[in-house]
Amino acid sequence: MAFPFHGCSSLLLFSSDAASGPGANFLYNAGADVDSSVLLWTKSSKTLLTPKMNERQARALFKGRVVPIGPGQLAPTIKRLAPRGKIGLDFESLTASRHLTLAKLLGGQKRFVDVSEKLESMRSVKKKEEISRICKAVSISKNILSSLHLSSSMTELDVVRQLAGECLKRDVSFAYPPIVAAGAASAQPHHTPAARRLGRGVVLIDFGVKYKNYCADLSRCYFLGPAKEERARYEEAKKVFHSIVDSMPSCRTAGELVRMGDKEMKKAGWPQLIHAPGHGIGLEVHEDPHLYSKSNERLRPGMVMALEPAFYCPGFGVRYENEVVWGKKKAKVL
Amino acid sequence: MAFPFHGCSSLLLFSSDAASGPGANFLYNAGADVDSSVLLWTKSSKTLLTPKMNERQARALFKGRVVPIGPGQLAPTIKRLAPRGKIGLDFESLTASRHLTLAKLLGGQKRFVDVSEKLESMRSVKKKEEISRICKAVSISKNILSSLHLSSSMTELDVVRQLAGECLKRDVSFAYPPIVAAGAASAQPHHTPAARRLGRGVVLIDFGVKYKNYCADLSRCYFLGPAKEERARYEEAKKVFHSIVDSMPSCRTAGELVRMGDKEMKKAGWPQLIHAPGHGIGLEVHEDPHLYSKSNERLRPGMVMALEPAFYCPGFGVRYENEVVWGKKKAKVL
Repeated sequence: MAFPFHGCSSLLLFSSDAASGPGANFLYNAGADVDSSVLLWTKSSKTLLTPKMNERQARALFKGRVVPIGPGQLAPTIKRLAPRGKIGLDFESLTASRHLTLAKLLGGQKRFVDVSEKLESMRSVKKKEEISRICKAVSISKNILSSLHLSSSMTELDVVRQLAGECLKRDVSFAYPPIVAAGAASAQPHHTPAARRLGRGVVLIDFGVKYKNYCADLSRCYFLGPAKEERARYEEAKKVFHSIVDSMPSCRTAGELVRMGDKEMKKAGWPQLIHAPGHGIGLEVHEDPHLYSKSNERLRPGMVMALEPAFYCPGFGVRYENEVVWGKKKAKVL
Repeated sequence: MAFPFHGCSSLLLFSSDAASGPGANFLYNAGADVDSSVLLWTKSSKTLLTPKMNERQARALFKGRVVPIGPGQLAPTIKRLAPRGKIGLDFESLTASRHLTLAKLLGGQKRFVDVSEKLESMRSVKKKEEISRICKAVSISKNILSSLHLSSSMTELDVVRQLAGECLKRDVSFAYPPIVAAGAASAQPHHTPAARRLGRGVVLIDFGVKYKNYCADLSRCYFLGPAKEERARYEEAKKVFHSIVDSMPSCRTAGELVRMGDKEMKKAGWPQLIHAPGHGIGLEVHEDPHLYSKSNERLRPGMVMALEPAFYCPGFGVRYENEVVWGKKKAKVL
């Protein structure tokens, strides 16, 4: 890939800024998960600077030059290898502390350009291999959901434990902490599962796994007892979801998609949604394209989004959510 | 607790800077796990600024004033509530992006003071309740280790899965990704578990759980087959560990402890250790007191440390690790 950061002569990305392993931008651009390392990307090459103790791992995983560095050698090495000119940094993952240290060592804050937005948008159109990983994450997640056994005497946390146990069997991890919301709790979009019994009514489960770093994000409703109104609304949610997918070819931008989704929900007689109707998904659960009504971001073939029309009323809520990939002429549900 | 940040009139801590939930400094000083919130601490009070959708949760968990804020209201609210004067920030967890945004809105970068070191050192002496949580994390971890069944045909990853399954049964999570290193891999202190069979020889397991946010960190060795030399070295490691604990009353500083540990390992005829002989532990697996030979940090009663004497040679390694709490006159193994 050509060096995409206009106005910069190099880019620095740190693998250790995220609390739990490298962030999405590092994984995407370095193509490797190596701890405590720095990707130096210039117009001509990619180099990974890594502590000596990770050198072997870096050489096995990183396709490019690996430069082992000792304590205190990071800044001198960057000085030596980075061309003159501005350096791009990911201000959204870099700590203030590292930013100021780099500024002191490499010529002041003015040398740096925040390229975090560009880094995120670079990931919005997915390659074939990325889509197939998301597909696999979706199919494992569906498989796990279909293995669940729910009963009214179980608690929400029991369901979370069941999900965790099924993940363990399949060697995958949660893409995010799952939501299990029974009865009235289902009316809160971000309910935290608790030691409360499922009882009778709707059980809303919002859950997905990560497969080779790529996320799935599904919402499904289950019913204990008659729950007549809840079931009817859930059938509506499925219909609204498919109407949105079918109408996507009429939308050129993320904003148009949001407004079309609003219209479909209104057609079903539903109240205005209190959260976005969906979001881009990939290495992160929520990523570009961000779906809000004022967005002018163009929808491009290869973008993958989670769409999640939902109905909430004081007594309960239902939500139906799947991943879709936008193609040249229509959207396909994964 | 009196406001401890000299030269500042207030402190701001953000719960959403850590990738996976609030960081240790937020949890410690806010005493609550509330998403997307800001702790404003002044000389007279603690206030939690939280989005409206988390207000109920904040009021239930936070002991102090809760101020719900709408979109775009964060900076105006801080302006209104923070007294004139410098504001302390945790530069080690704050992103560069948020730092610059705050500077723009609140009077320039000069208004801020980096109090990250102070925030970490405040947590080094543990209260009774904290020690009892660490004790509980240690006892659950030991219990899980004693339930393991190892055989030479299992892989390192099989052992990780067994550990994960046992955590699940007990409703606890890993404090850090466990290390399972068989045979020659045990010579690498930070080996990543792989799909390789345990075979015959030593199996080094470095593992601990988190209980109510507090961490345990234990290292134990297991043996498959005769493994005569490995077993002998492990017995030495246990003896070295206890000699270090017994000699701790002679140390006034972290540096003295490190040098004493070096001496004890030398007495056993071991080579110089290639990592620190231990580290402070609490909300984080590695925290203050940091153990390095030049440290002048005073050892104070209530400090909890993981001590991990280890022997490495080209063919294998053994390590024995436990938590100790430093009392007024001696150290106690948890």
